[in-house]
Amino acid sequence: MNLAQAIVGAPGARQRRAIAKAITLLESTRGDHRAQADELLTELLPHTGKAFRLGISGVPGVGKSTFIEALGLYLIAQGHRVAVLAIDPSSTVSGGSILGDKTRMEHLSVHAQAYIRPSPSSGTLGGVAAKTRESMLVCEAAGYDVVIVETVGVGQSETAVAGMTDMFVLMQLPNAGDDLQAIKKGVMELADLVVINKADLDPDAATRARAQITSALRILGQHGNPDHAHHDATLWHPQVLQLSALKVQGVEAFWQAVGEFRRLQEAGGRLQSRRKHQALAWMWERIDSGLKRAFRQAPAVKALLPQLTNEVEHGLLAASTAARRLLDAMHEGTRGGPSAN
Amino acid sequence: MNLAQAIVGAPGARQRRAIAKAITLLESTRGDHRAQADELLTELLPHTGKAFRLGISGVPGVGKSTFIEALGLYLIAQGHRVAVLAIDPSSTVSGGSILGDKTRMEHLSVHAQAYIRPSPSSGTLGGVAAKTRESMLVCEAAGYDVVIVETVGVGQSETAVAGMTDMFVLMQLPNAGDDLQAIKKGVMELADLVVINKADLDPDAATRARAQITSALRILGQHGNPDHAHHDATLWHPQVLQLSALKVQGVEAFWQAVGEFRRLQEAGGRLQSRRKHQALAWMWERIDSGLKRAFRQAPAVKALLPQLTNEVEHGLLAASTAARRLLDAMHEGTRGGPSAN
Repeated sequence: MNLAQAIVGAPGARQRRAIAKAITLLESTRGDHRAQADELLTELLPHTGKAFRLGISGVPGVGKSTFIEALGLYLIAQGHRVAVLAIDPSSTVSGGSILGDKTRMEHLSVHAQAYIRPSPSSGTLGGVAAKTRESMLVCEAAGYDVVIVETVGVGQSETAVAGMTDMFVLMQLPNAGDDLQAIKKGVMELADLVVINKADLDPDAATRARAQITSALRILGQHGNPDHAHHDATLWHPQVLQLSALKVQGVEAFWQAVGEFRRLQEAGGRLQSRRKHQALAWMWERIDSGLKRAFRQAPAVKALLPQLTNEVEHGLLAASTAARRLLDAMHEGTRGGPSAN
Repeated sequence: MNLAQAIVGAPGARQRRAIAKAITLLESTRGDHRAQADELLTELLPHTGKAFRLGISGVPGVGKSTFIEALGLYLIAQGHRVAVLAIDPSSTVSGGSILGDKTRMEHLSVHAQAYIRPSPSSGTLGGVAAKTRESMLVCEAAGYDVVIVETVGVGQSETAVAGMTDMFVLMQLPNAGDDLQAIKKGVMELADLVVINKADLDPDAATRARAQITSALRILGQHGNPDHAHHDATLWHPQVLQLSALKVQGVEAFWQAVGEFRRLQEAGGRLQSRRKHQALAWMWERIDSGLKRAFRQAPAVKALLPQLTNEVEHGLLAASTAARRLLDAMHEGTRGGPSAN
């Protein structure tokens, strides 16, 4: 039976196996698998795009799993089907993975209306992100109408998640300084919504954190992102919510805020333009990544790189001269003749 | 007479003309000029590296020119020779340039011991930065022992300047929120020293700003940059100074702080490792830029790109599939045969 048909077909064990098989195919590095995966994606694409894509980021310990479990079960009770994917760049080093331990979401992970997939555990961040985007499309084609992409606050993974979701949520603890870290990493700026978790443990600290983050969002919004411009009632202004994932307090208010965001984004045509922009950015990111890989694998480059690197490090060769020599060498090697420039 | 010899030769009108000629050559886009420029750089390189490279960044109106004029004249009085270069990405759009109006530094610009060069007014930020780096090497070979690279707070230009200098100074106004903007842009994190200018206009605001920035630097330094680690007496901790460039107050204290930073960096071997790291990063940045240019100029890519872009935008083709097709097309076009993958 055709894999694409099984994916877009009726929910159940067969669909679930087909999804798993498709994602394994997407994550394979074999050339023939890659060709099959491309074919599959092209078949599935007309069935994608109807889900709401929700990104959730936060440092380890902030309570992401607890929150996603509570949110996922709430959404399923409302009639949704929920897929949860993860991007964890550190798993490519450790071999481990967030979500790898499914007991972290013990009820959601066994639910028939949920699909949970851990982070790919090999590849660069760009590669991991690409596989997760593609897995997201598979889940959408299978009719999951809420796709949650989770990431820990490591490196550039938040940017990758914000770049593939309709709404990006930052989870924070009510600790002083956490907001500055998020601002520094450029993550606060990406947030459509900030959630302060564990607000029940220290209500005063949570209130202070909320005031600080609200003020920071206002100041950050004054420059830069035109989406945050004022005097336009159709525009969303980033909000700060307090909740307790453990006590399942605030989940409904959270989903209401998501709904309001979604309504404004769709009404303003910004949902579609955000997705277009994301798809093109993704294409260019993959192109850049492919160009770099081809460069590093070119025999002429492999032969020259160690020596030129050494000369640049020791100040014997200008870096820009070394770059030009390497580029010329690659083009000569590829063309089998002298370089045009 | 040989250009390189004139540059490393005695200071004076001839040297000044040779520098100008060399920089014009570096900024040329003609292929034969580029080859000559590479030759020249290789000749000059053994004479470079002895200057202290100081980066200064700040938003328009912060008083950079006034400060650099005051600092430059102070340094010349101490026996230094001072070169001032600029990176202004906006000049590539407007055709204008910071430093273009030399009357902004009316005394420094006419001084025999100073060399001032405006920002290259064409090219990408990467290209502009590369030319400025090369110009910096020319100035060093000519015996300028303090090279100041100035930039306005636009786009990624601060990162470029921090990536080519030994010390990166951020100029701020004593306004609430300015520090958050700098943190957001990742510039605060790059700063080895923060200067609050116009401190005399509102001493209370300046004191508040200093306390806020000091606190932010401390919090930001707790994570990330190992150079900011504590419990090591040879390590520099980013400082915050108040000054008034207009009244020439605080310039000497500024230069003392620079000297202390330089002493610690040299003693710890960090100056050399920073420069090595910068040179390699520059090489890779130029390689990436060259790869992208070659991709965009490839006939097969030019032929396919509009259609594939359109299909990706409209959700008819997965972005990663489009990327692979374009990369394959480029390689086939170059090799004159079918792609290996």
